[in-house]
Amino acid sequence: MKLLTFTHNGKSRIGAIENEKVVDLHAALELKFETEGKLRAAQLAEAYIPEDMTGFLQGGKESLDLAQESISFALETETAVQLVFDREEVKIEAPVPAPGKMICVGHNYREHILEMKRELPAFPVVFAKFANTVIGPEDNIPFYPVSDQLDYEAEFAFVIGKRAKNVTQANALDYVAGYTIVNDITYRDLQRRTLQWLQGKSIDGSAPMGPWLVTSDELVDPSDLDIVLTVNGENRQKSNTGNLVFSVQYLIEFLSKLMTLEPGDIILTGTPGGVGVARDPQIFLKDGDYVRIEVDKVGVLENKVVKQSIGVTV
Amino acid sequence: MKLLTFTHNGKSRIGAIENEKVVDLHAALELKFETEGKLRAAQLAEAYIPEDMTGFLQGGKESLDLAQESISFALETETAVQLVFDREEVKIEAPVPAPGKMICVGHNYREHILEMKRELPAFPVVFAKFANTVIGPEDNIPFYPVSDQLDYEAEFAFVIGKRAKNVTQANALDYVAGYTIVNDITYRDLQRRTLQWLQGKSIDGSAPMGPWLVTSDELVDPSDLDIVLTVNGENRQKSNTGNLVFSVQYLIEFLSKLMTLEPGDIILTGTPGGVGVARDPQIFLKDGDYVRIEVDKVGVLENKVVKQSIGVTV
Repeated sequence: MKLLTFTHNGKSRIGAIENEKVVDLHAALELKFETEGKLRAAQLAEAYIPEDMTGFLQGGKESLDLAQESISFALETETAVQLVFDREEVKIEAPVPAPGKMICVGHNYREHILEMKRELPAFPVVFAKFANTVIGPEDNIPFYPVSDQLDYEAEFAFVIGKRAKNVTQANALDYVAGYTIVNDITYRDLQRRTLQWLQGKSIDGSAPMGPWLVTSDELVDPSDLDIVLTVNGENRQKSNTGNLVFSVQYLIEFLSKLMTLEPGDIILTGTPGGVGVARDPQIFLKDGDYVRIEVDKVGVLENKVVKQSIGVTV
Repeated sequence: MKLLTFTHNGKSRIGAIENEKVVDLHAALELKFETEGKLRAAQLAEAYIPEDMTGFLQGGKESLDLAQESISFALETETAVQLVFDREEVKIEAPVPAPGKMICVGHNYREHILEMKRELPAFPVVFAKFANTVIGPEDNIPFYPVSDQLDYEAEFAFVIGKRAKNVTQANALDYVAGYTIVNDITYRDLQRRTLQWLQGKSIDGSAPMGPWLVTSDELVDPSDLDIVLTVNGENRQKSNTGNLVFSVQYLIEFLSKLMTLEPGDIILTGTPGGVGVARDPQIFLKDGDYVRIEVDKVGVLENKVVKQSIGVTV
């Protein structure tokens, strides 16, 4: 399945997309239960498929199975209630708009490390972003006047689907709900003005995410996916997840040894070479730029950079 | 007010403590509304004073005023429902068990920076912890066998009470709900094995918080409070918030320029000199140690260190 969060008529809920059709999973399950004669259809639908992604992922396999059944129901049944939308009728939001944890991995693409003349790291470098950074695939990247050095970082990301503590690599993928794309937008001078990167990584709207979550039953092997970033059509980053020093499985073992990972937590696996600050000459993002990231078998995330005035929130 | 989160009979809710008596704020408001003849007493109580601290803080001044009235009501009224508990009858939890953001400031005590022969920083160093680290004042500090270098960091902390974006120092304190204490427990070797500190700061249970939140109408001036940390009664850290390089007001201006701060977000203002790793000889925490932090006008946070086996969660 391709799971997403969407807004229609001012209301946000979760859905699945199939052949450019978006199914409202909550509404579909409720109507399915009603059709089956269940008197508590609304409450049961709310329990199994609530309207937010994190709550839905907490439901685990039971909720995922019901989501699959709801898609079939919605696509096959004539109903008075609208359960299926054309893609253009809705606004697609970040699949996980409010992750509990956003964990980012630095220095994780082999060729990028070597081009920077660094040694391969013995341990993953991990740092954080917060949920205030998340925006969706149809949102603009706000460029706040706190710095001139706005930079992109294409990242392949995975979302946790099951509480994970001390998980081993062998069964790590059982804990992945699905995969998506994040642009780890970074204000470079703010990132580098102190020892710790957080302040350059935590500006509102600096984590475009999407367009959806490809579930791990559909995307079974995350280890050989091309990842390409362009700015206004020009190639800037290009690699393959096969070049990751620390794989998805390794990261789950490593992180779950430190902390309990929860459904809805998202891990950004790192960015390939070619970021603006490392180019010669350096080149940063500017008002009106289109940044596009494509990952094999996942999709395309494209956002436009829009300069903000102080105090203005997009 | 001193606001807290407590558990009684397996159920967690928010309260206020006065003269060693804990008032159940939600239940008190519901009964008060009932007594006033309001037919929607339960729903109104849930809207104004829900059972979790973050939801309550989102209610702002209206909810705080109703909390104050609920305390008076509970202490003055004979009721069949138990609204008031002796401190020993309940378990006090972390006042904000699930903060949206936990932002920590490094290198912020003047005398500590000078003793380390460092220069005063031009900008705050900020880094993150996640909500999985939060435990309460009556919980043990779990010492996981991922490192031998368990260290303490006494921190004076403030909690945001109102959404804050581009706030200036002049009115920054209007955005503070209240003050509390956090022990920023750190696994030193994990903190230092890569450039970024997150992995040594994010282990489950590594942020004892409490014992309560002293509201900012009661603690008006955060700029002259003694802070002392002892291990098994022995002095280890001692300073005063007057020594902060970056004050509470400065931090709110600085951080709210970068990101939108939300009710329930917590900011740890930094730790004084005297941490175990910086002592000569170095001394780390061990199984059975009692770590006690006292901050003027806030209270005492004391936790015991308890060694864990792999896979065991406290």
